[in-house]
Amino acid sequence: MPNPTAAMLVIGDEILSGRTRDANMHHLAGELTQAGIDLKEVRVVSDDAPAITAAVKALADTYDTVFTSGGIGPTHDDITADCIAAAFGAAIDIRDDARVLLQAHYDRNGQELNAARLRMARIPDGATLIDNPVSVAPGFTLGHVHVMAGVPSVFRAMVASVLPTLTGGAPLLSRTLRVMRGEGDIAEPLGTFATEFADLSVGSYPFQKDGIYGSSIVLRANDPARLDSAMTALQQIFPE
Amino acid sequence: MPNPTAAMLVIGDEILSGRTRDANMHHLAGELTQAGIDLKEVRVVSDDAPAITAAVKALADTYDTVFTSGGIGPTHDDITADCIAAAFGAAIDIRDDARVLLQAHYDRNGQELNAARLRMARIPDGATLIDNPVSVAPGFTLGHVHVMAGVPSVFRAMVASVLPTLTGGAPLLSRTLRVMRGEGDIAEPLGTFATEFADLSVGSYPFQKDGIYGSSIVLRANDPARLDSAMTALQQIFPE
Repeated sequence: MPNPTAAMLVIGDEILSGRTRDANMHHLAGELTQAGIDLKEVRVVSDDAPAITAAVKALADTYDTVFTSGGIGPTHDDITADCIAAAFGAAIDIRDDARVLLQAHYDRNGQELNAARLRMARIPDGATLIDNPVSVAPGFTLGHVHVMAGVPSVFRAMVASVLPTLTGGAPLLSRTLRVMRGEGDIAEPLGTFATEFADLSVGSYPFQKDGIYGSSIVLRANDPARLDSAMTALQQIFPE
Repeated sequence: MPNPTAAMLVIGDEILSGRTRDANMHHLAGELTQAGIDLKEVRVVSDDAPAITAAVKALADTYDTVFTSGGIGPTHDDITADCIAAAFGAAIDIRDDARVLLQAHYDRNGQELNAARLRMARIPDGATLIDNPVSVAPGFTLGHVHVMAGVPSVFRAMVASVLPTLTGGAPLLSRTLRVMRGEGDIAEPLGTFATEFADLSVGSYPFQKDGIYGSSIVLRANDPARLDSAMTALQQIFPE
């Protein structure tokens, strides 16, 4: 059975303007690979309601699971929750379970749960909350869409909360052979190898070290035995 | 007149598997911002022909300029050029101008221009070559789509080759005010400010320093005078 598929939607002007370098995509990609869920597509859009709504619809229609990152804080530019609700035709308002979490948190810190902070309790009808052990304000899961914060430490904590609830397949395993020859030298025998092992993903990534061009050949598969036999065959083609 | 819009398509299994952390998106975002071209969307897809073709079509239909990154090397998994040709219904074959570049390069290095390396001379009909001062094998521009390498040093060199050929708008300028208060504290006055200065992009990004929560308020606009007056108003709302 093929692994379940996933997509990610990164939301935020700060990524597209070059102000911030996104870190969440790389983190989620690694976690999903280990969990046996195939990340197939990532989109990055700005803090623009029609763009967010259209992207989440397109991804939710295509993939088994969708993760979003960004836009669920208390400020005026945090519009993700409302966009997700709109995409699914769900009502959205301040929800008691989220409000209780926030109230307890701000009471502990002697801060006021003001109108802006209460926006973080806006949760679509039918959604379940995603635990946020870092800064309390929850994410949420609506259908197969998991809505999470953009701050990397919070995003990571929410991914850790969500992943155990998902059914993954066999983890995607990888083996790498570094060959100190340029891609142009190895491409022909590597192409023949990739045709013979068409059930594996066979990638080639050039690198440069001390002025010498080399290639990292990466084999990816779910079956460790198959990966071992492919690696053995590859090492015979490219002996040290 | 609004600035021209752009999108980016990052192609590669290695990004989606978490093996490699993409660096090209952040670089291009910064360059486009300086050039007065608004990066509106980024997509990341795997080395899968239907996915690449569909994504490049969708982005080319929507935005003024599209940049792609990855998949133009000599190995079997480098399928970007053929996918771009397919997306535009253009014929593709080894082209003499690209072949001449490669032949001279490999002659200089005493290497053979073999069949695999010749794949890098596959250029769609009607495309113009993008100079690659790092490793010679060219990118290409077909219509308003610029097809570039994924290796960061080569990608950057190709961006530098392409950008002067594009017509940008006014550079997007930004000013940042760091406020040592949490987003929940500043959200209400900041929302009022954003409504008053609705022609600017007003973003709020939380940070934590020495256990204190703060917010970076980022104003973005093309008009420096307008940015200055907005910054003055903002500093009055949030004095040091």
